[in-house]
Amino acid sequence: MTTALAARIAREYGTPAVVIDMDRVERNIARIQAACDAAGVANRPHIKTHKSPYLAGLQRAAGAKGITCQKLGEAEVMVDGGLDDILISYNLLGEQKMQRLGALMRRASITVTADNPAVLADLPMASAAAGRPVPVVIECDTGRKRAGVETPAEAIALARQMTTMPEVRFAGFMLYPTETGWPEAQRFFDDALAGVRALGLEPSIISTGGSPNLKNLGQLRGATEHRPGTYIYNDRMQVAAGVATWDDCALTVYSTVVSRAAPERGILDAGSKTLTSDTGGLDGHGLILEHPEAKIARFAEEHGFLDLSRSNTRPQVGDVVRIVPNHVCVVVNMVDEVLMVRGDDIIGTLPVAARGRLR
Amino acid sequence: MTTALAARIAREYGTPAVVIDMDRVERNIARIQAACDAAGVANRPHIKTHKSPYLAGLQRAAGAKGITCQKLGEAEVMVDGGLDDILISYNLLGEQKMQRLGALMRRASITVTADNPAVLADLPMASAAAGRPVPVVIECDTGRKRAGVETPAEAIALARQMTTMPEVRFAGFMLYPTETGWPEAQRFFDDALAGVRALGLEPSIISTGGSPNLKNLGQLRGATEHRPGTYIYNDRMQVAAGVATWDDCALTVYSTVVSRAAPERGILDAGSKTLTSDTGGLDGHGLILEHPEAKIARFAEEHGFLDLSRSNTRPQVGDVVRIVPNHVCVVVNMVDEVLMVRGDDIIGTLPVAARGRLR
Repeated sequence: MTTALAARIAREYGTPAVVIDMDRVERNIARIQAACDAAGVANRPHIKTHKSPYLAGLQRAAGAKGITCQKLGEAEVMVDGGLDDILISYNLLGEQKMQRLGALMRRASITVTADNPAVLADLPMASAAAGRPVPVVIECDTGRKRAGVETPAEAIALARQMTTMPEVRFAGFMLYPTETGWPEAQRFFDDALAGVRALGLEPSIISTGGSPNLKNLGQLRGATEHRPGTYIYNDRMQVAAGVATWDDCALTVYSTVVSRAAPERGILDAGSKTLTSDTGGLDGHGLILEHPEAKIARFAEEHGFLDLSRSNTRPQVGDVVRIVPNHVCVVVNMVDEVLMVRGDDIIGTLPVAARGRLR
Repeated sequence: MTTALAARIAREYGTPAVVIDMDRVERNIARIQAACDAAGVANRPHIKTHKSPYLAGLQRAAGAKGITCQKLGEAEVMVDGGLDDILISYNLLGEQKMQRLGALMRRASITVTADNPAVLADLPMASAAAGRPVPVVIECDTGRKRAGVETPAEAIALARQMTTMPEVRFAGFMLYPTETGWPEAQRFFDDALAGVRALGLEPSIISTGGSPNLKNLGQLRGATEHRPGTYIYNDRMQVAAGVATWDDCALTVYSTVVSRAAPERGILDAGSKTLTSDTGGLDGHGLILEHPEAKIARFAEEHGFLDLSRSNTRPQVGDVVRIVPNHVCVVVNMVDEVLMVRGDDIIGTLPVAARGRLR
């Protein structure tokens, strides 16, 4: 079964096509902004999901305080696109990045992150280029075992190091609690806060993160802002996490069935170079809206291999289907542009301007 | 430990950086061309690995008969770059692609693939646009359960359908045997060949595929050409398959250690948006040349999480390390350009011109 819009997209644009429905995008932006407002927490959306200054502008216009970027190159694209007040939630290191950070600080308000002394030690280079101190939040690991200091004592030690460095300014704490780990995060934060206050410091940013954590919004006492990313599009992981419905999924990949190969198999023209091999811990690689019993079982680079053994209705060669990906952020990162639709109308293309800005 | 070249790349270009050593690239091109020559099989390299008309030109200059592309958009970029004699090893479907295929056939010699009647049924549109019949090879599945007809009888039925269509021309067979399945592929091919000969057809292209299959080169009696892709760069999968050594790996990702997080952990500035989540069936996500005992255990989008528990030497924050990825083809596809070096010299950047040409 191919919808009229799917047929039009295949004919006028071609598949695989990464398509966003702007009605849903705007609804998602408004809904989460309202949730942040209700929780009394500022919204600082993470642009890693869409990588578009235009969409970041919509988020700002809806009430977001600023934005979050993961890479310096992304922040440069956002400043080029008119955005300001940017948190780069990433350790930046080395002379090349420090020169670029300093140059960017001359154009916009930028805060960076640190979880170790070596990162702090490089920041004076950026400060010299910027002509002012670099604002820094301390990243705290409250259970995910990703980046971040592991104990409040380490956080306090970094803050103490900052008090000896005129080139940096302590700006606060960045946390990314697990979905069930907010009490643990609270204890970590309370201890770290007491420690930095004893040093005469006061945080201005206390940031929590993650779209799956939207259900916990406002649950950290003292939090000033949240940095959700995926909510603008949503995906199979967000639905599985219980923070979005299928109707909230604003991005779908339109893909043509190019072969049936065998009665219980089928092949899509979207493989790991479109949908990526990120599973997000889920079984299969996306939901086909027209054939929810079909499993996208595995990939070649440009082929998606369907297991249709549990499907009552099976697609025909030439059908154009819509896929909600497991992890939308990495899918957007595969394409130079997304196709914008509104209901059944094709509006145009939107550049994924910060795609590939991995440095 | 950071090599002098790594320090220079970080300082002048930034990390993560996808870097190719042109000495090794040229050596890989020459070595596999010589192997094809010795086996009496023409070389038709698959450009999906490098997506660069410049590198395809080097492969042609070394003796390749033509090239293979997986997507029509890739073939368009290659023709724009001066390449000719292209096999598109993919089912193409639909009016939009047929118009583009026809237009491309007016500029270059193109052969396409089919494994089902619906694909054949669309080709007259391309033929009308091109003003001549479309050459088609029949894709045969000889055990991988990917694309391709499953039996010689199906192959012969497709060939018979072609004899009724003046808009297409039977060009031969495309196979991608498993590494141990060449005897099975031989039986399939022999039966299919006898069947099409009974129809008065004679194949001009009998194509085998895959870099891991280079060890089987020439083992299909009747094969006219092979389409290896990965051999130009090689990767951890090719080393695991026994067709390349670490010294044959021409592409490495230079990445900075941005955090240690904990004594037995470390964090790279390359995550799933650089190295991708393709494991290729291997444990861990790449080999760190400076720390072969370190395991790249998992990814966030821009973080690579190291398990250093088995490492005698552990990297410091700020170290720039070199990673041989598991699957090089998907890593190249993440970046707009690669950085070319030769020994310890930086030569310049090379656009990944067909990146993102997924339609």
